[in-house]
Amino acid sequence: MKSDLPHLMRARNLDALVIVGPDGFGPANAPFTYFIGDSHVTTGAVIVKRCGENATEAYLVHNPMEREEAAKTGLQLINKASYKLPEIIQQKNGDRLAADVELWRRVFSDIGIGGRVAFYGADYINTSFNFLNALMREGVCEVVTEQENDVISAARATKDADEAARIRETCRLTEAVIGATRDFLRSHRVANETLMRADGDPLTVADVKRFIRREAVGLGLDMHDCIFAIGRDAGIPHSSGTPNDPIMLGRTIVFDIFPRGPGGYHSDITRTWCLGYAPDHVQQAYELVLQAHDMAEAAFNTTDFTYTFNEAVCDLFEAHGHPTARQNYATTYGYMHGLGHGFGLAVHEPPSMSLKGLRPDEKFQPGTIVCNEPGLYYPDDPRGGWGVRVEDDYWCNLDGRFERLTEFDRALVVPM
Amino acid sequence: MKSDLPHLMRARNLDALVIVGPDGFGPANAPFTYFIGDSHVTTGAVIVKRCGENATEAYLVHNPMEREEAAKTGLQLINKASYKLPEIIQQKNGDRLAADVELWRRVFSDIGIGGRVAFYGADYINTSFNFLNALMREGVCEVVTEQENDVISAARATKDADEAARIRETCRLTEAVIGATRDFLRSHRVANETLMRADGDPLTVADVKRFIRREAVGLGLDMHDCIFAIGRDAGIPHSSGTPNDPIMLGRTIVFDIFPRGPGGYHSDITRTWCLGYAPDHVQQAYELVLQAHDMAEAAFNTTDFTYTFNEAVCDLFEAHGHPTARQNYATTYGYMHGLGHGFGLAVHEPPSMSLKGLRPDEKFQPGTIVCNEPGLYYPDDPRGGWGVRVEDDYWCNLDGRFERLTEFDRALVVPM
Repeated sequence: MKSDLPHLMRARNLDALVIVGPDGFGPANAPFTYFIGDSHVTTGAVIVKRCGENATEAYLVHNPMEREEAAKTGLQLINKASYKLPEIIQQKNGDRLAADVELWRRVFSDIGIGGRVAFYGADYINTSFNFLNALMREGVCEVVTEQENDVISAARATKDADEAARIRETCRLTEAVIGATRDFLRSHRVANETLMRADGDPLTVADVKRFIRREAVGLGLDMHDCIFAIGRDAGIPHSSGTPNDPIMLGRTIVFDIFPRGPGGYHSDITRTWCLGYAPDHVQQAYELVLQAHDMAEAAFNTTDFTYTFNEAVCDLFEAHGHPTARQNYATTYGYMHGLGHGFGLAVHEPPSMSLKGLRPDEKFQPGTIVCNEPGLYYPDDPRGGWGVRVEDDYWCNLDGRFERLTEFDRALVVPM
Repeated sequence: MKSDLPHLMRARNLDALVIVGPDGFGPANAPFTYFIGDSHVTTGAVIVKRCGENATEAYLVHNPMEREEAAKTGLQLINKASYKLPEIIQQKNGDRLAADVELWRRVFSDIGIGGRVAFYGADYINTSFNFLNALMREGVCEVVTEQENDVISAARATKDADEAARIRETCRLTEAVIGATRDFLRSHRVANETLMRADGDPLTVADVKRFIRREAVGLGLDMHDCIFAIGRDAGIPHSSGTPNDPIMLGRTIVFDIFPRGPGGYHSDITRTWCLGYAPDHVQQAYELVLQAHDMAEAAFNTTDFTYTFNEAVCDLFEAHGHPTARQNYATTYGYMHGLGHGFGLAVHEPPSMSLKGLRPDEKFQPGTIVCNEPGLYYPDDPRGGWGVRVEDDYWCNLDGRFERLTEFDRALVVPM
């Protein structure tokens, strides 16, 4: 969590962190959002300076037109316009990269930053590569580019009680959307096993997604996309659904929704539904997935490596004859994804419960936020393609106890 | 436009382009979206290989769970799972960066890529820096990191007729949202110069933004945020508005909306409104802004440098006693932003109409998409803070003629 930053910086001998926030990245730049929060700062950079043993000071270099949004962040403000970039560009004979480097040299000098400075945040890989090389070449600072488990990721990997409360609130709002969507589906009449709109046309995935988006937005959630996949598409874990597919009875619907809520924090919840009735083979697979889900939830702890929870689910599925990615990494049916992943300001964050060896060995720790999402997928089943997945969210609280943040019921069949 | 890629690559002696598409960036990674379009591919990489004098082949390295979304792109598919990353990680003794580099070495070898390879797309600056350095160190290819006007930006800087049609459609949908918002405001009763909700509380910026979001989403637009700023906030160009501000008569409202529409292409439109009536000084400034707007629109051509259009607007505003950023780069009132900018898959793209010397000298060209957005801002006017801006969008068609894509009326006063 953020309070870990001073000791993480000390342990890695870093004098400062720079988190870039170039224009156009918005919430996709989670490391930057981590510092600017709910404010509408669209461009800038955060600088975290280590001061003494256990303290930091944080600055925001901001665009003058965003000075009031910048002030809402509570960070110390550095107005970029005060450095008069046009004059620097002229001094550098029109070389804009050199001018950028000079601007940073002046900013660092003004707030007393030097030594080992680590860089984070999102940008275009070509220009950021040139920028970091130029900073080194010009001796502005010692440029550090951490690889795995960098300081910002390590801090973000555990969530404090405030962050957990926001994620819990996002879960609550997301469940309201899921419930409203189920009600919406049930409100339709059925003809030839197909849900019908009032205008006499079949209800489609596109119609349902439009309803979901409007509900989400109405509750203040920010949602670029979600998965609402029926039948064969439900059998492809990351198919987001085919817009023109009609909504029919007895087909599996995988509804996976991961919107941003208060403070920019996501939820990540999946329910599988069969409208009206479920075929026996689907019902059986669903019960096995629930068994895997409950088994994992009961097993969660802070001492085992996270891959062990996934291995146990592979054991269970394989014992019931389902292929897994552990047996065949490229399998396209059975169980081919990981058991879950951390999330927060991004939908996918460490820790992950993947195959042993695929990711660095990780353990849960107090503050971990993680989802639990076993599933089984048979897109090419001759009886009709299908897939089932159930996903709930958890916080490992500061006492090391796992709290489930989601409560939505897990009934497969939605009576029509 | 995309058809320029072969000759751009030849002119720069590039054998291949790699556009990375790491997880979590979505539409913020416009260079990647440029190739995957409307498909829901969330992670992968595009490779463009030059074949002979005037042809390219494009590949998508994709996650197996997204194989059907990947197929919708029309690119040649390379299933990442077929490279069995877990085995490579094991061969590299758990060094994931080395394993990544080895995976790329194998992909390049399989499709016959070597020589000068340029890299693009969004990612985290620390890990992408390490990745590009490792590719070089291991001799996988000659890594090229273009700086200004890179191949992808140069291609994207001009839009073909299909892209222009999509942007025109986004403009049409956006104008429907603007019109609905004006109707929504007008539907409220007024008490003490304040718009009142049915529940007896004042209508707020947050209420209006919720309405705007729902309208946008209902029309299939994707919108993370917009500017709806009243009074003093309207006087700060990039203030997005204060949620609790009440909507009152006679205050300037700057409504700047830039959603994503069909194919991921944005519009960018601003209207300024005063509900009921406008103070004289606001009306006068607004008319001057319209004059600047019309003057710029009439002047647009493909022979002058783009900064000249902005300089002419500075001349006009200064002649009327308004300070500009040309006189004082850090001014917080008057006219302190550029006259406009290109847009497309991102809200801000080249070319820009900025101060002379601030950006590379640019000219409009057939295919340019650009907005025209002069404004005047006085957040601390003792009569009450205010700001006005009008923004329309244009396509320089393939005959070099400028077509305005926006039609929404520019009336300042909204009768209540």
